[in-house]
Amino acid sequence: MLPANEKWFTEVHQDAGSAWSLAIETRLAHEVTDYQTIEVYQTRDWGNLMVIDGFVMLSTRDNFLYHEMLTHPALFSHPDPKRVLIIGGGDCGTLSEVLRHQGVERCTQVEIDEQVTRLAEKFFPELCARNDDPRAELLFDDGLAHIKNQPEGSLDLIIVDSTDPIGPAEGLFGPGFVKDCYRALAEGGIFVQQSESPLLHKDLIAGIRDNMGQAGFSDIKTLGFPQPCYPSGWWSASQARKGGTIEAADPARFEASGIETRYYNPEVHRGALSTQL
Amino acid sequence: MLPANEKWFTEVHQDAGSAWSLAIETRLAHEVTDYQTIEVYQTRDWGNLMVIDGFVMLSTRDNFLYHEMLTHPALFSHPDPKRVLIIGGGDCGTLSEVLRHQGVERCTQVEIDEQVTRLAEKFFPELCARNDDPRAELLFDDGLAHIKNQPEGSLDLIIVDSTDPIGPAEGLFGPGFVKDCYRALAEGGIFVQQSESPLLHKDLIAGIRDNMGQAGFSDIKTLGFPQPCYPSGWWSASQARKGGTIEAADPARFEASGIETRYYNPEVHRGALSTQL
Repeated sequence: MLPANEKWFTEVHQDAGSAWSLAIETRLAHEVTDYQTIEVYQTRDWGNLMVIDGFVMLSTRDNFLYHEMLTHPALFSHPDPKRVLIIGGGDCGTLSEVLRHQGVERCTQVEIDEQVTRLAEKFFPELCARNDDPRAELLFDDGLAHIKNQPEGSLDLIIVDSTDPIGPAEGLFGPGFVKDCYRALAEGGIFVQQSESPLLHKDLIAGIRDNMGQAGFSDIKTLGFPQPCYPSGWWSASQARKGGTIEAADPARFEASGIETRYYNPEVHRGALSTQL
Repeated sequence: MLPANEKWFTEVHQDAGSAWSLAIETRLAHEVTDYQTIEVYQTRDWGNLMVIDGFVMLSTRDNFLYHEMLTHPALFSHPDPKRVLIIGGGDCGTLSEVLRHQGVERCTQVEIDEQVTRLAEKFFPELCARNDDPRAELLFDDGLAHIKNQPEGSLDLIIVDSTDPIGPAEGLFGPGFVKDCYRALAEGGIFVQQSESPLLHKDLIAGIRDNMGQAGFSDIKTLGFPQPCYPSGWWSASQARKGGTIEAADPARFEASGIETRYYNPEVHRGALSTQL
């Protein structure tokens, strides 16, 4: 039983027979947009919490794990990533990590629901601190349509930072979208997709990897990492490269970048690449 | 809210403002011993679940993470571990992993509460499958007293597989016990202690590492790993070595051991050793 002397937000993981709850102080926002229902809570111990259609998106306290592991392994694997596209990612945490790489010349974020970004600016300002970087481009559009309009071979890195594969994000887990991404990537480019829990969602991960293989990618890796606010607390990102293999970061390059992280480092990167499925 | 059409077991993490729940089918056991209250539940999706004094100890589904990471990194770091002592660990999952190492000549498990082991034999038989190994010695005794009686330099590895630092396990987190362990270890020996969550329990981990340093250990490392059934889903083991440094496994030695794992491997080991605190 959850103690009645606190207010709780609970996310039930129906297919896993588990649930996760956070003690909350108050609800800060509740918006019904054209796409979904977005809520923001002030929690007792986890900072602010964004919830979409009842599913936890991020908390102030632990989002660094997800955002670091969705970005830095791919950026440090690619020899020289300059042109980056983020599909989803409206909280701007992924954008913020990408822009820490000085070699990136342009990073476009295509979020379907502008209100996600507007609420992030208000309640997660630390994630939006680089939104004014001249290299950043924030679009509010359908990622499925956007990718079809990109010239062939025009991107070095595509990061899919989406919600679960239900609702607006469902198409982002389909084979057609992955093929479109393959086409838009330059030779040696890397496609990254958040790919749920290695403990709970093995079939989904297998499906994501199948789509990547069928699209023509030459190497596919799934990286595991802790992520407390998501079901099971163990999450993953799957990467696929167009030509060549996916390698861990060169420690000297990481060192030279001057990027300070709280979880990611080249050794953690190697370990994540060795996640068994 | 937790759906009323299911029965739920909930553990509240009071100091973290979070809670974790599992859908349960039925309670299989409820025993009040001289030390604690032990319950076993059959869950809907996580196999069996052991709970002590309201805190989750292990589930069938995810205990492999904890048991592999408490044992193999230490056993593969040590050049030739022959004499192993486990303090606590009554479910026998740690013992089982240790005994997979052919070089181990004796592994003694000192659990204070015999009923933990009796219930594990009944409800987690896969963890107890090696209890009849002639190298295994199961004692039901106070670990604090046991370690004082061990000859100086008589052990290669001590693994503290305890409950949280409250109740019967509190003394296992004190400086006196750690000094006793240091004395009992041979030169080059390794002390391992489960050390809670890198996200939630930074002060506790700092205290554990302080105790290790003050006892005279020459190298100290904290290894992080996912562990869904514990608070935050991100857990740690802290290691200390008596003389010399703590290194990751030699991949060739791991390969030659023939030990098959579901999470641990030498690359994951290196990554875990690089956990930032």
